[in-house]
Amino acid sequence: MYSVSVRDHMMIAHSLRGDVFGPAQRLHGATYVVDVEFRRRDLDESGIVVDIGRATELVHAVLAGMNYRNLDEEPSLKGLNTTTEVLARLIFDRIGAAIRRDELGPGGRAVETIRVTLHESHVASAAFEGRVGEHIRGSEFEFA
Amino acid sequence: MYSVSVRDHMMIAHSLRGDVFGPAQRLHGATYVVDVEFRRRDLDESGIVVDIGRATELVHAVLAGMNYRNLDEEPSLKGLNTTTEVLARLIFDRIGAAIRRDELGPGGRAVETIRVTLHESHVASAAFEGRVGEHIRGSEFEFA
Amino acid sequence: MYSVSVRDHMMIAHSLRGDVFGPAQRLHGATYVVDVEFRRRDLDESGIVVDIGRATELVHAVLAGMNYRNLDEEPSLKGLNTTTEVLARLIFDRIGAAIRRDELGPGGRAVETIRVTLHESHVASAAFEGRVGEHIRGSEFEFA
Amino acid sequence: MYSVSVRDHMMIAHSLRGDVFGPAQRLHGATYVVDVEFRRRDLDESGIVVDIGRATELVHAVLAGMNYRNLDEEPSLKGLNTTTEVLARLIFDRIGAAIRRDELGPGGRAVETIRVTLHESHVASAAFEGRVGEHIRGSEFEFA
Amino acid sequence: MYSVSVRDHMMIAHSLRGDVFGPAQRLHGATYVVDVEFRRRDLDESGIVVDIGRATELVHAVLAGMNYRNLDEEPSLKGLNTTTEVLARLIFDRIGAAIRRDELGPGGRAVETIRVTLHESHVASAAFEGRVGEHIRGSEFEFA
Amino acid sequence: MYSVSVRDHMMIAHSLRGDVFGPAQRLHGATYVVDVEFRRRDLDESGIVVDIGRATELVHAVLAGMNYRNLDEEPSLKGLNTTTEVLARLIFDRIGAAIRRDELGPGGRAVETIRVTLHESHVASAAFEGRVGEHIRGSEFEFA
Repeated sequence: MYSVSVRDHMMIAHSLRGDVFGPAQRLHGATYVVDVEFRRRDLDESGIVVDIGRATELVHAVLAGMNYRNLDEEPSLKGLNTTTEVLARLIFDRIGAAIRRDELGPGGRAVETIRVTLHESHVASAAFEGRVGEHIRGSEFEFA
Repeated sequence: MYSVSVRDHMMIAHSLRGDVFGPAQRLHGATYVVDVEFRRRDLDESGIVVDIGRATELVHAVLAGMNYRNLDEEPSLKGLNTTTEVLARLIFDRIGAAIRRDELGPGGRAVETIRVTLHESHVASAAFEGRVGEHIRGSEFEFA
Repeated sequence: MYSVSVRDHMMIAHSLRGDVFGPAQRLHGATYVVDVEFRRRDLDESGIVVDIGRATELVHAVLAGMNYRNLDEEPSLKGLNTTTEVLARLIFDRIGAAIRRDELGPGGRAVETIRVTLHESHVASAAFEGRVGEHIRGSEFEFA
Repeated sequence: MYSVSVRDHMMIAHSLRGDVFGPAQRLHGATYVVDVEFRRRDLDESGIVVDIGRATELVHAVLAGMNYRNLDEEPSLKGLNTTTEVLARLIFDRIGAAIRRDELGPGGRAVETIRVTLHESHVASAAFEGRVGEHIRGSEFEFA
Repeated sequence: MYSVSVRDHMMIAHSLRGDVFGPAQRLHGATYVVDVEFRRRDLDESGIVVDIGRATELVHAVLAGMNYRNLDEEPSLKGLNTTTEVLARLIFDRIGAAIRRDELGPGGRAVETIRVTLHESHVASAAFEGRVGEHIRGSEFEFA
Repeated sequence: MYSVSVRDHMMIAHSLRGDVFGPAQRLHGATYVVDVEFRRRDLDESGIVVDIGRATELVHAVLAGMNYRNLDEEPSLKGLNTTTEVLARLIFDRIGAAIRRDELGPGGRAVETIRVTLHESHVASAAFEGRVGEHIRGSEFEFA
């Protein structure tokens, strides 16, 4: 199995709902350093998993939709508890949707699985990984 | 698959038995920077894998049992060759046992697999990953 | 010159005032991974710069005053533009004030200079360094 | 599953063929920080995955075959597009071949899978992982 | 003293002249992860050292002049031994020249010193720091 | 001012004397990831601060004198409280002594200052920096 990973980040405000979150129920914020790993069994004829330039732009575009925002007021996130885990899944879903729209180029369709990791500090991170296409039906997070 | 990782560390002395260890047969020591990744298929109703606060405390408590000690003289490690691999397994076992005692909260039981990684320097690490419960029978490392 | 550094972090929401900040004028947030370096010319009789345990607690306490908060609504920050640079200075001032209150122990008074670095992402950071006591008069940031 | 990882690096020049590579079609270069993870189900009688000293030497020897070279002119790489992905596979193949020659010691044969990760910058990496032995037949990259 | 640091990278080929360089006399390459730290005594009226957006763009533009190139054939580097130290100085000089052309904005003139660090691997780096303006006369590296 | 930094590590056991150290008074251990930065005003005729190959070997040799040892029983450290700060100074002294013996080559004598940083975990480090030669008289740590 081959993979390629790219890193970017976003800086957001939000609050979390539920006693389990303690002081994180207050409005606060986070820098998420985001690693997206694209995986496939074989390389294409150029010897790559995906065009890393396009992958970088795609990840940047997906994060730009949330960067420098208060997620509590984002219409597209209405009703979501924007935990690190949920955001990892949401970014996975949006990248998967972009791949289906061929935004990674024709080779993007060969990507089999994606892992999205969000580092919220030097001591904590969360991730979601799954098959591309898994999000098509039944994603509890992406409605648009 | 979702996951959450937390990082902590411990500083121990020990020696290793066997010619393969060369100078590490002498009494020496290590800082282990420890990453513990908790994984499960679905999130709970709060949108999390585990309560990260409790996970952090649990990992800290498990490491506290070895921190600032000479492992060669720890009764609970008697007979073990405390290689980085063995310590990764031991920490896995102890976290698994704590989950069975519900120390991660009721949601802890939903954790399916755990990966424990010990970084012993900027150039070397070891890890153990397995299913929670795998340690119940036949662990060669955990006797209590 | 000797130094000791400790690392902690805080997660805050805020917005910045001024056209120069572009989209960061919106309410957003950040994780600041904070390194505080304490420096002095000579070691004490135990062979240390400061008690690293107390230094760790002090930094944690200073950050706890801002952690999980919206800095735009913090009374103690009223009127401040909470840029990364300003926050570095503010943390420096508060640590300096705590040292004057002997919260680092009697040896804390021997600390000559402090450097506070805030990493806001994997690609950007800001810092303030100065002599302890420099903040006593004329700090534009600390009024309490 | 247990694993051990070691890190080393190499510094090479090369150029890439294909419009997809844009400016990387020009002769340029890279430092690859290389992590090699060796995995097996059980530990040996010493409590290790592999002799980490021999693993470190093996990885160093494999990288030495490319280090400080222009890969465009390496006879053993003739015809290859030396993308990060292809180099990860090539290093995997060469380590696998060395294991078959017992260069990791007799325990090396117990290694089941290997993951080779090449970090080309602070924001991009590529990896190949597979079963040892998988490369025996049908590797498109290793001819010698 | 306040500072702001930004990070970027470049990937170049080159060779070094002199027996001291051993195998690095051959054509090889490097990824340089570059940190540029801008320092000044006081903040501007917005509470910043420099506009971090413009600083990021400036560093990117300076590196773009060398990125994806064989430095041995760069006309602007003719006659230079492009060691990591020399490249750190060269980048310092070019940033200083850009500041004199007001490419950091009017506030850029308030920057007093700059430190440029080039990480060539996980185990080695080189840096140059100096006063802005120091490069005006007598730089042995910048001729244009 | 130019500088070059190299990184290596050592793994030691020790105990610390004094109530201030709490549980670290017990025999325990540490991995120290060690950065040594060599600084001088001007480059030599090859465009370097020091021969980085020789610098790497020198740092490795100095650390080898303590690596895989119990520092409590090292004759050359008798009477020392081997805190991270003291070890940073000790390594500084030993590197300085080696430079005086020309073990860095003739160019080594041009090094003006050295900074030795010991990272004892992902959250704590200590450092000593000083002029080469400063250690000649009055070092409280180096007797040989």
